[in-house]
Amino acid sequence: MGAAGKGGAAPCIFCSIARHEAPSRIVYEDENTIAFLDIAPLSRGHTLVVPKAHVDRLTDLPPDQYAPLLSTLARVCRRVERLSTHYNVGLNQGALAGQIVFHLHFHVIPRYEGQRTFPRVRKEITEEDGRSVHGLLRAD
Amino acid sequence: MGAAGKGGAAPCIFCSIARHEAPSRIVYEDENTIAFLDIAPLSRGHTLVVPKAHVDRLTDLPPDQYAPLLSTLARVCRRVERLSTHYNVGLNQGALAGQIVFHLHFHVIPRYEGQRTFPRVRKEITEEDGRSVHGLLRAD
Repeated sequence: MGAAGKGGAAPCIFCSIARHEAPSRIVYEDENTIAFLDIAPLSRGHTLVVPKAHVDRLTDLPPDQYAPLLSTLARVCRRVERLSTHYNVGLNQGALAGQIVFHLHFHVIPRYEGQRTFPRVRKEITEEDGRSVHGLLRAD
Repeated sequence: MGAAGKGGAAPCIFCSIARHEAPSRIVYEDENTIAFLDIAPLSRGHTLVVPKAHVDRLTDLPPDQYAPLLSTLARVCRRVERLSTHYNVGLNQGALAGQIVFHLHFHVIPRYEGQRTFPRVRKEITEEDGRSVHGLLRAD
């Protein structure tokens, strides 16, 4: 997808995930939001929380989406606390801040004793880890 | 304050700021939320967004506060975009994640060309910088 010659902009991977067209390990979904495992986690349990509406930035999000989005973020945080009560929530806006996908998303990144830094090279999650973490996070 | 022998827990600095008992450079305030400049900014314009209700964690925030808090966060982000359209929004939960004040707060940290890392030692903002940044951020 996103190939030159199709005449359009590259499709948004998070829109594709929200439409269930691209594979992902979804941990929560409702009318307005979706949460799924990061494909190349910075730590075990790294999850993304995304509004289904395509906006690049929080400053573009319709105000009626504020409560649904923070509700899903809080829900995912509660589940992540099964893995660790220590975690970073992050939203990167703009390339200098590390934004890679230009569809608004919060990261939830568990922190663990003895892991003070993040891996310098991000590797795709293994099938086994993905299944194990998904099993822990996909229900309330 | 917070001295041993007083028999109570140390007072919460963000509750003191919300009650206007501790000094701070407030950029926005409403019934439910308050935003003010970080006293030792990681970059120029580093601002904190805080619910007035004292909760340690997003998972403890009453759901009726979700929309007010994300609304203030979006408002502060819009203002920070006067300084830079690149910024990190962060919420640290737990000591291993870097949480220092145990009252829920989002950081908004502008990023600038040529400043790829944060200072290793955080210094208190100068009176001059504080006044200048406050002037840029304190109104819509």
